[in-house]
Amino acid sequence: MSTKSGLVVTAHPGDFVWRAGGAIALHAKKGYRMKIACLSYGERGESQFAWKKAGVSMEEVKAGRRAEAEAAAKLLGAEIEFFDAGDYPLRPTEAILDRLIDIYREEKPSFVLTHALEDPYNFDHPVAAHLAQEARIVAQSAGHKPDPTRAYSAPPVFLFEPHQPEQCNFKPNTILNIDEVWEVKRQAFEILAAQKHLWEYYTRVALNRGVQGGRNTGKPMTYGEAYQRLFPQALEELA
Amino acid sequence: MSTKSGLVVTAHPGDFVWRAGGAIALHAKKGYRMKIACLSYGERGESQFAWKKAGVSMEEVKAGRRAEAEAAAKLLGAEIEFFDAGDYPLRPTEAILDRLIDIYREEKPSFVLTHALEDPYNFDHPVAAHLAQEARIVAQSAGHKPDPTRAYSAPPVFLFEPHQPEQCNFKPNTILNIDEVWEVKRQAFEILAAQKHLWEYYTRVALNRGVQGGRNTGKPMTYGEAYQRLFPQALEELA
Amino acid sequence: MSTKSGLVVTAHPGDFVWRAGGAIALHAKKGYRMKIACLSYGERGESQFAWKKAGVSMEEVKAGRRAEAEAAAKLLGAEIEFFDAGDYPLRPTEAILDRLIDIYREEKPSFVLTHALEDPYNFDHPVAAHLAQEARIVAQSAGHKPDPTRAYSAPPVFLFEPHQPEQCNFKPNTILNIDEVWEVKRQAFEILAAQKHLWEYYTRVALNRGVQGGRNTGKPMTYGEAYQRLFPQALEELA
Amino acid sequence: MSTKSGLVVTAHPGDFVWRAGGAIALHAKKGYRMKIACLSYGERGESQFAWKKAGVSMEEVKAGRRAEAEAAAKLLGAEIEFFDAGDYPLRPTEAILDRLIDIYREEKPSFVLTHALEDPYNFDHPVAAHLAQEARIVAQSAGHKPDPTRAYSAPPVFLFEPHQPEQCNFKPNTILNIDEVWEVKRQAFEILAAQKHLWEYYTRVALNRGVQGGRNTGKPMTYGEAYQRLFPQALEELA
Amino acid sequence: MSTKSGLVVTAHPGDFVWRAGGAIALHAKKGYRMKIACLSYGERGESQFAWKKAGVSMEEVKAGRRAEAEAAAKLLGAEIEFFDAGDYPLRPTEAILDRLIDIYREEKPSFVLTHALEDPYNFDHPVAAHLAQEARIVAQSAGHKPDPTRAYSAPPVFLFEPHQPEQCNFKPNTILNIDEVWEVKRQAFEILAAQKHLWEYYTRVALNRGVQGGRNTGKPMTYGEAYQRLFPQALEELA
Amino acid sequence: MSTKSGLVVTAHPGDFVWRAGGAIALHAKKGYRMKIACLSYGERGESQFAWKKAGVSMEEVKAGRRAEAEAAAKLLGAEIEFFDAGDYPLRPTEAILDRLIDIYREEKPSFVLTHALEDPYNFDHPVAAHLAQEARIVAQSAGHKPDPTRAYSAPPVFLFEPHQPEQCNFKPNTILNIDEVWEVKRQAFEILAAQKHLWEYYTRVALNRGVQGGRNTGKPMTYGEAYQRLFPQALEELA
Repeated sequence: MSTKSGLVVTAHPGDFVWRAGGAIALHAKKGYRMKIACLSYGERGESQFAWKKAGVSMEEVKAGRRAEAEAAAKLLGAEIEFFDAGDYPLRPTEAILDRLIDIYREEKPSFVLTHALEDPYNFDHPVAAHLAQEARIVAQSAGHKPDPTRAYSAPPVFLFEPHQPEQCNFKPNTILNIDEVWEVKRQAFEILAAQKHLWEYYTRVALNRGVQGGRNTGKPMTYGEAYQRLFPQALEELA
Repeated sequence: MSTKSGLVVTAHPGDFVWRAGGAIALHAKKGYRMKIACLSYGERGESQFAWKKAGVSMEEVKAGRRAEAEAAAKLLGAEIEFFDAGDYPLRPTEAILDRLIDIYREEKPSFVLTHALEDPYNFDHPVAAHLAQEARIVAQSAGHKPDPTRAYSAPPVFLFEPHQPEQCNFKPNTILNIDEVWEVKRQAFEILAAQKHLWEYYTRVALNRGVQGGRNTGKPMTYGEAYQRLFPQALEELA
Repeated sequence: MSTKSGLVVTAHPGDFVWRAGGAIALHAKKGYRMKIACLSYGERGESQFAWKKAGVSMEEVKAGRRAEAEAAAKLLGAEIEFFDAGDYPLRPTEAILDRLIDIYREEKPSFVLTHALEDPYNFDHPVAAHLAQEARIVAQSAGHKPDPTRAYSAPPVFLFEPHQPEQCNFKPNTILNIDEVWEVKRQAFEILAAQKHLWEYYTRVALNRGVQGGRNTGKPMTYGEAYQRLFPQALEELA
Repeated sequence: MSTKSGLVVTAHPGDFVWRAGGAIALHAKKGYRMKIACLSYGERGESQFAWKKAGVSMEEVKAGRRAEAEAAAKLLGAEIEFFDAGDYPLRPTEAILDRLIDIYREEKPSFVLTHALEDPYNFDHPVAAHLAQEARIVAQSAGHKPDPTRAYSAPPVFLFEPHQPEQCNFKPNTILNIDEVWEVKRQAFEILAAQKHLWEYYTRVALNRGVQGGRNTGKPMTYGEAYQRLFPQALEELA
Repeated sequence: MSTKSGLVVTAHPGDFVWRAGGAIALHAKKGYRMKIACLSYGERGESQFAWKKAGVSMEEVKAGRRAEAEAAAKLLGAEIEFFDAGDYPLRPTEAILDRLIDIYREEKPSFVLTHALEDPYNFDHPVAAHLAQEARIVAQSAGHKPDPTRAYSAPPVFLFEPHQPEQCNFKPNTILNIDEVWEVKRQAFEILAAQKHLWEYYTRVALNRGVQGGRNTGKPMTYGEAYQRLFPQALEELA
Repeated sequence: MSTKSGLVVTAHPGDFVWRAGGAIALHAKKGYRMKIACLSYGERGESQFAWKKAGVSMEEVKAGRRAEAEAAAKLLGAEIEFFDAGDYPLRPTEAILDRLIDIYREEKPSFVLTHALEDPYNFDHPVAAHLAQEARIVAQSAGHKPDPTRAYSAPPVFLFEPHQPEQCNFKPNTILNIDEVWEVKRQAFEILAAQKHLWEYYTRVALNRGVQGGRNTGKPMTYGEAYQRLFPQALEELA
C-alpha cells in the first residue's frame, strides 16, 4: 500500500465534488490516502433547497449537508474533516489555521488541491485558497510547535476549476485524465441532490476538458479535470 | 538507442548555449536526438569582437560564428542546421518557414525549446519564437504537402530564459535539473570566446535557478535551467 | 413612478459626488430610487480644511461632513445612509456588512456603483468595494436570515472612476452620458467647499470622458462618467 | 425591413459556424443583413478528412470547403464573400485589406464579429482579427478613396470564443442569448461533416455559456454565445 | 551650448504636438538638440478637413500637413525629418528602418520619445513604436555598417500618452513638469487648425496630469505630460 | 550633515539585509538617517537553526535574532525599531499601525523601502508591504492626531527584490548601484550565520543585477540592488 497522500482544502462540500472529485477518486484508487478539509457545511449559500422547508433550523441544515458531504467523500475514497468556519461569509479563525497546519504536518501530502485565487462570484473561495496556502507555509516554520525531528516539505499546489473560469482569471496548465474514475465522480454528483441543475453542467465541463487534454497531447482523453499548478515544477527530463 | 528527439529553435548561436545548453546536453546524454535550428549566425549583434578586426568581411564574421556554433553544438551532443535568416534584424522568409515545418515533421520532436514571447532588448528573439510556433502549427495541417500516411502531433513548447527575465514577462514554471551535465554546459560557454563577460553571468543564473529548483521541491539541485511551458500538460497523476 | 432602484456604496462623501454624481442624478431623474451607502464621513482624510480650525473636535468635523453629504445627496436626488465605519482607515464590522446585506434585499437594486478594486493612494476605496461585493453575494444566500418567499438577484456592478485611473488598473468599458444632469453634478461639487481644488479637475474629467464617449460611438456626448462593468452582460441583440 | 447589418470576419469556414453561428442566425432573423468575410477556405488546416482521399487536388479541397461554407452561411441567413487568402498560414495582402475596407463602408455594420486577439493554437486567428480591426480603422480615414459625402462610423467589435478560451486570454464580457435560433445553429454544425467530433463539443459550450448567461442576470437562458466586447460602450442608462 | 539631444519618433504630425510638445519645447529650451522623425504626413487619417475641399490631390494634402508640421516643429524648437511612410496604414520599409538607425547613431540621443505599445484605435501608433525600438536596437549592432570607432549606447525610451490611455494599457510612471513651456505647447496646438476640437481636450489632459504630478510628489505642478518609461533606470541615489 | 532620511519596513531581519542592505548602507554613507521598522524577529520562519537546540525557548530565539538584527543594522548604519508583530504568520495590530504612522511623521522619509506586493512563498511579506503603505497613507490624514502645524508629504515607495522575483510578479524598474558599499553589505550577510546558504545566492543576485544595471544605461556597475518604484515620478528633465 502506498503511503502517499493528497490534501483537498475546500470552502463548501459541493466544491470538492464538482471541481476535484476526479482527482480524489483517481488518487484514492492508486492507493493515496486522500484527506478533505471541508471548511464550511455550505449551510447558507449552497442549501437553497433545504431552506424551503418551513421552520428548518440552521443545525438541521448543517446536519443535512454534513451527511451529504460524508457520503460523497466516502464514495470518492477520502476521509473528510469539517471545520464549521461559517458560510457566506467564511471566516476562518486562528484555531482553524492551527488545525490545518497540523494536518499538513500529519499528512505530509504529495499535493494540495484548493480554490482559484480570485472569484468575484464567491468570496469564500479565495478565502479558502488563502488559508490553504498560509497553513502550507506556516507548516514549514521550525518555530511553530518546534520539533527538530520533524521532516516536512511544502507540497505543490493545484487550483481546481471555478464555476466561471475566465471571470476568476483561472488559467489551467494541467489537465488530469479522470477517465478511469468518471463513473464514481458522476455518482458523487448525484449525492448532491439539491444541486441537480449542476450535474449536467459539470459533466459537460469534464467532457470539454477531456477534449482539450487530448488536443494538447495527442493522447486520447474523454473526461478531464483542469488545474492551475501554482509553483514551478522541478524536472529531470522535459518529455 | 532512444528514438526520441528534441528541437531547439534559436535566433543566434549564443542563445542555445546560455539558455538551453543544459537541456540539450542532458537529453543528448539520455539518448535523445537533439536538433538545433539556428536562424542566424549572430553576425551583426553578437559579434562586436569580430568587427574590431580591421577590414573584416561579413562572410568572415559569419564563418567564425558558424564555426563556434558548430563546435558548441557538437560538444553539447546536438546536430545543428543554419538558416542564415539575417541578424539585427532577423527576417525569416517563407522558404525558411517551409524548411522548419519539414524539420518538425522529420524529427517529430518530443519537445521544442525556443525564445520568450517578448524581449524589448532584442526583437530577433520574439521573431524566432513566433516562427518556431508557426512552423509547429502548420506542420499539423493535413493540406501542407499532403501525405495521408503521416503521423505528427504538435509537441510541448518550452520557452528558455531571456537575459532579463522580468523585462520580458518571462515567468518560469519549470526548472530543469542540469547537475549531471553542468560541466559540459560550462565548457560550451568557453567556446563563445567573444562573450566572455557572460560566462560568469550565466553560471550565476544556473546556480540561482538551482537553488530555486530545490526550494520548490525539497529535492537538492545545484544547477538549474528555467523554462516556461506554454501549453497545458495532460497528466495521469498529480505527484 | 418607477420602482427601479440603484445603490451606491462609497467610502467617503466626496467619492459619490466626483465619481458617480452624474449617474445618481440621471437615474433619479428617470425615476429610479437612488440610495447611497456612505461608509464613513471622510472625517480624517478628506477634511484637511476642517482640522485647521483650532480646537475642533472629531464630532464637529463628522457633523460638518455629514451635513455636506446630506446636502449633496439631496441635490442629486438620492437617499443617503451613514455607517460611520471609520476613515483612514475604514474598518467595516460584521454589523455593517449585515446592514448592507439588508439594504441589497430591501432595495433590490438594478445596479450597484462602487469603487475600483485597487487604489494605492487610498486603501479605504478597495475596502469599500470589497464590502459592496461581499454584501451583494451574501444577500443571495438562502440561509442568511432565511425567508423562502424572498426574491433577490445579484445586480450588475459598475466600478466608478478613481482619481488616478491607470495607477488603479481601472479600465473603463462603459461611458455614461450625463449631459442632461451635468449642471446638477456641478452644483453638487460646490457643496464640497473644502475640496474646491477638485471642482475643475473633475469638470475636466467629465469633459474628456464625454469626448471619448462620443468617439467610441459616433454619437455626440459632452459630459461623461466612466465605469468598469464587472460581470458579463447577457444580451438579446448586439447593437 | 431593417437596414441594419452585421459583419463577421473569419479566418476559416468552421469558425463562423462554431463561434458566431448563433449571432448570425439571430440577427438575420431580426432583419439584419449579415455579411461574412471568409478569409480562407480552411483548405489546409480544417480539411484532414478531404486530404485522406487519394490524389485529391488543392482546388478540389477548396471547392468542397467553399460549398460547405456557402451552405452554412445560407442556412444561417448570411451572405458570404471569400478572400482565398491562404490557410495555415493565412497571409492577407494589401488588396484583401482594400476590399475589406470597402465592405465596411458599403455595409456600415452595426457590429463586427471576429477572432480573439491571441491564439497560440492557431496563428491564422489573430491575423484575421488584426485585419478586421485594421480595415475598420482605415475605413474611417477621409483620405482613403476620398468622398466628402461619405458617412461612416467605426462599429463596436466583439471577439468570438476561441477553442480553448483561457489559453487565448479570452475574457467574455457579453453572453448572447441564442435560444430562439439554436436549432439553426445546430443544423449548421451538421453541414461541417468533416468536423463531426466538434458538434457535441460546441453544443456543450453553448449550454454552459447559457447557464452562465442566466447566472449573471437572473433571467433564464439555455443556449449562449460568449463574446468579448473590445471598446467601451456609451450608455444612456445603466440598467 | 549643450551637446545633448533627444529624439521623437512619431507616426503623424499631430502626435508630437499633443503628446510630446511639452518635452520637446522644454528640452530645446534647456539646450538639447531636439529631432523629430515624423513617419507620415497624416495625409489620410488626420486630414478630414483638407479632404472636404473638392478636387484636392494627395500631394496637396501632404504639402499642407508638411507645412503645419514644420511650423509646429520650429515653434517647439526642433528639427523635423519626414519619412513619407504611408498613413492609415503606416508601412515602414527597410530603407526607412535604415535611415532611422543612422539617426540614432548620428544623434546619440539621451532619450527617445515614441508611441504606446498598443492602440486599438490607431494601428499606425504601435507600428511607429516598434520601428523606433527596432532601430534603437539595431543601432547597437557592431556589424551594421561596421565602424570600430563608433560609440553608441541605447538611450532610455519614454512612451507618450495615447488618446485613450486605459484602452491602450498605457500606465504612466513619469510626469514631466511642462509649466515653463506651456504657452509654447498651446501655441503649437493652434497651428493644427484642422484639429481644433482637440485643443481643449489636450489642455485638459495637461492640467489633470499636472495635478497628478503634484499629488505624487508634494511639489506644485500646473501642466504635466505623462510618459511610460520602458526600461529600468540605474540610480546612484533613491531620492 | 544631511537631514534627509529613509525608512525600511521589513517583515523579518533577513529581508533588510539581503534585499535592501545596499540601499541602507549607501544612503547612510551619504548622510541620510536610515530607520528600519522590523515587524517581527523572524523567530519562527527564519530560525531553523536556533530551534535545533534542545529545549530552546521562544524568548531565547527572539533574543538571538534581535541581537543579529541589531548588529546588522548597526553595521549598515541604520537605527532599528522592533515591533514583535508575530512571525509565520505576521499579524499587525492597530497599535503597530499607529506607531508606524508616527514614524512616518517623525522621520518624514525621502523614500520608503518595503516588500513586493505578492509573495506566494511567504505571506508575511505582502502583509508588511500593505502595512507600510497603509501607514504612509494614514500619515497624510489631517484628522489622525490632528496638528495643523504639521507638514508631511507621502514619500515614494520602492519594493525590494523578493527571493523568486518572477513568482511574485516583481518587475524591477530601478537598479541602484551599490558598488561603493558592497563590502559592507557582504559583511552584514555574515552576521546572519543561520542563513549561510543564502550568502552566495544574494552575492550572485547583486552581481547579476549589476550587469543589468550597466546594460540598461551603458555606465559600468558591478553590484546592483533591484527595486520596483510604485508611484509615478515627477521630473523636470528626462535625461
